Amino acid sequence: MSRLGETRIAVIGGTGDLGFGLAVRLAKAYSVTIGSRDLGRATDAAAKASTVARVRVEGKTNEGAASACDYAILAVPDLPPADLLSSLAEGLKDKLVISPIVPMVLSDGIFSLSPSPSGDSAAERVAKALPKSRVAGAFHTVPAPKLAQLGEELAYDVLVTADTREVYEQTARVVSSVGRLRPFYAGPLVASRLVEAFTPALLNVSRLNKLKSPSIRLV
Amino acid sequence: MSRLGETRIAVIGGTGDLGFGLAVRLAKAYSVTIGSRDLGRATDAAAKASTVARVRVEGKTNEGAASACDYAILAVPDLPPADLLSSLAEGLKDKLVISPIVPMVLSDGIFSLSPSPSGDSAAERVAKALPKSRVAGAFHTVPAPKLAQLGEELAYDVLVTADTREVYEQTARVVSSVGRLRPFYAGPLVASRLVEAFTPALLNVSRLNKLKSPSIRLV
Repeated sequence: MSRLGETRIAVIGGTGDLGFGLAVRLAKAYSVTIGSRDLGRATDAAAKASTVARVRVEGKTNEGAASACDYAILAVPDLPPADLLSSLAEGLKDKLVISPIVPMVLSDGIFSLSPSPSGDSAAERVAKALPKSRVAGAFHTVPAPKLAQLGEELAYDVLVTADTREVYEQTARVVSSVGRLRPFYAGPLVASRLVEAFTPALLNVSRLNKLKSPSIRLV
Repeated sequence: MSRLGETRIAVIGGTGDLGFGLAVRLAKAYSVTIGSRDLGRATDAAAKASTVARVRVEGKTNEGAASACDYAILAVPDLPPADLLSSLAEGLKDKLVISPIVPMVLSDGIFSLSPSPSGDSAAERVAKALPKSRVAGAFHTVPAPKLAQLGEELAYDVLVTADTREVYEQTARVVSSVGRLRPFYAGPLVASRLVEAFTPALLNVSRLNKLKSPSIRLV
């Protein structure tokens, strides 16, 4: 793993906007596989991503991508069904799993975090479903539409949660490889719900102030 | 009220860091009164603020300041006791009341929002305690230490919550009068808890990345 290019990243849900954008960006530095429930959709998205990124991106089923990776990103908008996570648990054992997931509801035109009876963040729930993986939260505030546009420099700051500095540092290297994203450590997974709250807040600000895909920088 | 200078702002809790900083900054454009439970502390802080701001700042009891203002800012770190709010309710009737309040707890070195059994934000709870006032949330992410240093330009963005555009616009004018703060409408009060979450997240980022008083800008 001395060269980033030897590290394999699976983008689970890589056919969606966020996943496709991350796959395209990460393909410059990593060996990327797009995962999907449907193999045909995965290979189609991979072919398209290869064209945009000008490097080969592979397509596999989610399970296939999970088994064959070093790191995985769960690029899905909401918490995956329990059966999907449990089907990936063995393949993702001992691996870094990054959650950009922000479960949201839209009511009267206002976004909010989906109620969480336990108060747990999405990242914490992923960690509970994948107890043998090393889970981090990141990428929540990176606008998906800008990821796939390689001309966008992405000069944004990304808050990362992880239970250890080591997992944070590993995630931070992935974040740093995308455009000009700057990672900051935002605490253990228990602090993830604070970080996940930025996304619906930014969506509300976007709509109410006619801003297109705003993100944040720390100043 | 054609000139800002004729508008009177009461900074309730103006002897604390955030309140003192806001009083000093707002005194350039508004007639400012610092309120405190203790009249002596209010007049002491007002004298100090007058020196820093180079314009006269008054000091009164919280009740006196509330009665004699057009707008009030509740510059207290946590939700005030119910008796304080009820003692101010009549004086603040029909007035704009701005809440920068973020109730927080610190556990194992990590800040989080104080649990809210109802899920209500501080701003919503203020609105319930002051049902005849027009309540907005703002200033949550403006670092108090930098407010009182007039050399700091404060080029930050401020998310504002309010139940009507009119209350938002009024609050936005107050925000815009402080340094280079830029207000953005972040939705009705029901969206305030998302905005309040930024503060403990930034405090965690500050401590874990050795950043001094970080704030945010939208990009």
